[in-house]
Amino acid sequence: MAPFEVLNEEGMELLEHNADTILEEVGLEFRGDREAVRLLAGAGADVDEERVRFPRGMCRQLVQATAPRQFTQHARNPANSVEIGGPHTVFAPNYGSPFVRDLEGGRRYGTIEDFRNFVKLAYLSPHLHHSGGTVCEPVDVPVNKRHLDMVYSHIRYSDKPFMGSVTAPERAADSVELAKITFGEEFVDQNAVILSLINANSPLVWDATMVGAAKVYAAANQATLITPFILAGAMAPVTAAAVCAQTLAEALGGMTLVQLVRPGAPVVLGSFASSMSMQSGAPTFGTPEPALVLYAMAALARRLGVPFRSGGSLCASKIPDAQAAYESAATLIPTVLAGVNFVLHAAGWLEGGLAVGYEKFILDADQCGMMATFIRGVDLSDNGQALDAIRENGPGQHFLGTAHTLANFESAFYRSPVADNNSFEQWQEDGSLDAAQRANVIWKRMLAEYEPPPIDPAVDDALLDFIGRRKAAVPDSDV
Amino acid sequence: MAPFEVLNEEGMELLEHNADTILEEVGLEFRGDREAVRLLAGAGADVDEERVRFPRGMCRQLVQATAPRQFTQHARNPANSVEIGGPHTVFAPNYGSPFVRDLEGGRRYGTIEDFRNFVKLAYLSPHLHHSGGTVCEPVDVPVNKRHLDMVYSHIRYSDKPFMGSVTAPERAADSVELAKITFGEEFVDQNAVILSLINANSPLVWDATMVGAAKVYAAANQATLITPFILAGAMAPVTAAAVCAQTLAEALGGMTLVQLVRPGAPVVLGSFASSMSMQSGAPTFGTPEPALVLYAMAALARRLGVPFRSGGSLCASKIPDAQAAYESAATLIPTVLAGVNFVLHAAGWLEGGLAVGYEKFILDADQCGMMATFIRGVDLSDNGQALDAIRENGPGQHFLGTAHTLANFESAFYRSPVADNNSFEQWQEDGSLDAAQRANVIWKRMLAEYEPPPIDPAVDDALLDFIGRRKAAVPDSDV
Repeated sequence: MAPFEVLNEEGMELLEHNADTILEEVGLEFRGDREAVRLLAGAGADVDEERVRFPRGMCRQLVQATAPRQFTQHARNPANSVEIGGPHTVFAPNYGSPFVRDLEGGRRYGTIEDFRNFVKLAYLSPHLHHSGGTVCEPVDVPVNKRHLDMVYSHIRYSDKPFMGSVTAPERAADSVELAKITFGEEFVDQNAVILSLINANSPLVWDATMVGAAKVYAAANQATLITPFILAGAMAPVTAAAVCAQTLAEALGGMTLVQLVRPGAPVVLGSFASSMSMQSGAPTFGTPEPALVLYAMAALARRLGVPFRSGGSLCASKIPDAQAAYESAATLIPTVLAGVNFVLHAAGWLEGGLAVGYEKFILDADQCGMMATFIRGVDLSDNGQALDAIRENGPGQHFLGTAHTLANFESAFYRSPVADNNSFEQWQEDGSLDAAQRANVIWKRMLAEYEPPPIDPAVDDALLDFIGRRKAAVPDSDV
Repeated sequence: MAPFEVLNEEGMELLEHNADTILEEVGLEFRGDREAVRLLAGAGADVDEERVRFPRGMCRQLVQATAPRQFTQHARNPANSVEIGGPHTVFAPNYGSPFVRDLEGGRRYGTIEDFRNFVKLAYLSPHLHHSGGTVCEPVDVPVNKRHLDMVYSHIRYSDKPFMGSVTAPERAADSVELAKITFGEEFVDQNAVILSLINANSPLVWDATMVGAAKVYAAANQATLITPFILAGAMAPVTAAAVCAQTLAEALGGMTLVQLVRPGAPVVLGSFASSMSMQSGAPTFGTPEPALVLYAMAALARRLGVPFRSGGSLCASKIPDAQAAYESAATLIPTVLAGVNFVLHAAGWLEGGLAVGYEKFILDADQCGMMATFIRGVDLSDNGQALDAIRENGPGQHFLGTAHTLANFESAFYRSPVADNNSFEQWQEDGSLDAAQRANVIWKRMLAEYEPPPIDPAVDDALLDFIGRRKAAVPDSDV
């Protein structure tokens, strides 16, 4: 199925032209990283201190020359490796929330136990393809050491692909080292095994922390999501066309730098755009305007020829109620119909990303399953057409017991583990539970039944040894 | 924006071919209506008692020869008249539920007071274009007389377009009479002022009640929604391609009859398809398979050249929780992206249509508003591009107070009356309400502030006089 399009050819050319105008006339600031500025100047950019202006077409040309259209992110279990780009859509869980929420505990700061729980839930969820990164912030671990526990958790409690740390270049380097212990040094140099989230400091700024991490990953041939994070009206003008052009400009600058650090390093064009409440200035999600941006940016990434990251199950709601679900669906459905390749925040997101919810995670993962069924499309085989079944049955006869129904019974429809489709009376008899209450039962059962995937004990020991040494080398710090 | 497509040209031709095969080889039964069978035989169909088989292409040809591609349904207030067909999408409320639900009252049988309340809410909802029909069943009014009170309520308490009764041909005739009193006899004969829901008795049966009502409306030049209602696996094979071909066959047969009764009478191809729980046989909604059917049928209707009805805010959930919202969004978004022209059940639907919810109505109507904003697309005007705003602002400067933001402030983003986008702390201070609780406050305020649209007292007297005489003419009956 071709992606849904909100712009015609002319509209896309206009936005590309505007992105080039922004890059040429205003430029981007690369703050606190002289090497980045030097690399860009060497490739033809016009540099004035930290301000970098790009001749029209320069970024596009450099990115298209070496960035792969599609790449494999390898998982510890090869069966779980994912393709990023082309017609593929990879669902990864929530990222970056300081708070967690569940029905009994309410809202509280995340811990490393919560972190491990979410890694386990993603591992057990058939519709999530990826273990993600900072599924929640484990605030009970010092800031300068928690990346070690997080990356270890992804490797140890899951065997799906994962993300690395970006909060400091040396933490990115630690992530790469842990990957090398797990996958082997040579393998890591030749293959993407880490994918990391590099956010622009919009408008039009790349800061030293993110650029530093991006350079580490690129040098190691690891993949980065180069993502302007734009709350329209704050980090860009309020209008969709402006958000798109600015996003494209910022992403092109970041991707260009990555390709200069190591030509061919996998890079994904990211877009995270939200609207905002003009009453309070708070970010809003699942509204029509970010959906328009999402469709437009997906099309612009296709034209550029790089994989695209956006979307997820985003919402502003504080709890997994109807608001959360409407908003999440109004983000996730466009995400899929736009053909997004890598979907961060596909499960668990609440209150604009400030919290990740256990019940929300289960509810969202179920929706990811529905999306996977949807994109398989209409089965036009003889069995799908079922003409004989219609011929044999005739008018007025139901199909419940026919041979065709019985033969297709098991696989005919997506089965949700959360939805209650029973009669009102049965639902009432079962306790009149709402969706969140049913999801609560499910995540608890999943964690109770969880068993870790196998790992080579020598690898595990080496990982723990590395982590122990790194933790011992410096005092705890909360920056 | 072009509609989203799930089938290519070849796929659509295959389904059209299969529909013709069904019409030719199996045929349709028109039960208990000799006139209908005679009309179809006269037009070239092959008739064997009540079974009617159609030569390949006959129905398509007859429908395309006279059915309008688009028509106006006139409202009592001309400003509220709607276009049905072409690029237009009309949202109408829930239809047919015996039960109503609200937060305080829970689930109970609907009454004429509930009916009036929903008519008032639809009248007051800027994002609903239509008053609908049987928004709930007013079970406190005798079955054989409630259509009079329902149609009167639509005319008196709203001035948006409405639907007529289909539960018996004479009730359809009463609906037409009430319309003639309201709009004038000549106007009604030349213009569509009633749109009515004619369901097939799938598989492959049209029964006397529905055909009788359809004939009354067609003869009066009023519009009908010719809608196979298919629970896949029960009323058709379980597979999407079979549901589509059968739906097309049944609808073609019904539309052909309407065109033979009165060539040119407005007719809409309808599709209502649900999947089913293979555990319990219960209908399921918001699942991937009906979305595929919806997209495919919308494309088939476009190829036929008639307006299309489908979709809505469908769900299986008993309450307005996350399940209800995910399912409703997973129906409503495809409805809009498929380019559905008339959307019944756009607001209020719960538990597979058995109940209509006051809070759900408010939540759904808000989503309809979001859809209306979405389909306006990306503004590519100079103001939308906002290049000067980006030029003037420069890297690292926020846009909150810029001239462009201030100028676009009011209209930049869709404003939801229900969503809570405040901080967690503010939300908590406001009582930690969920979306349904906030919607509860809204519908009560709307009803408290409701004022009826003006009506000519002479027309009102004539309507009430007609209704009084019709009610007095026959004893109450519950069939």
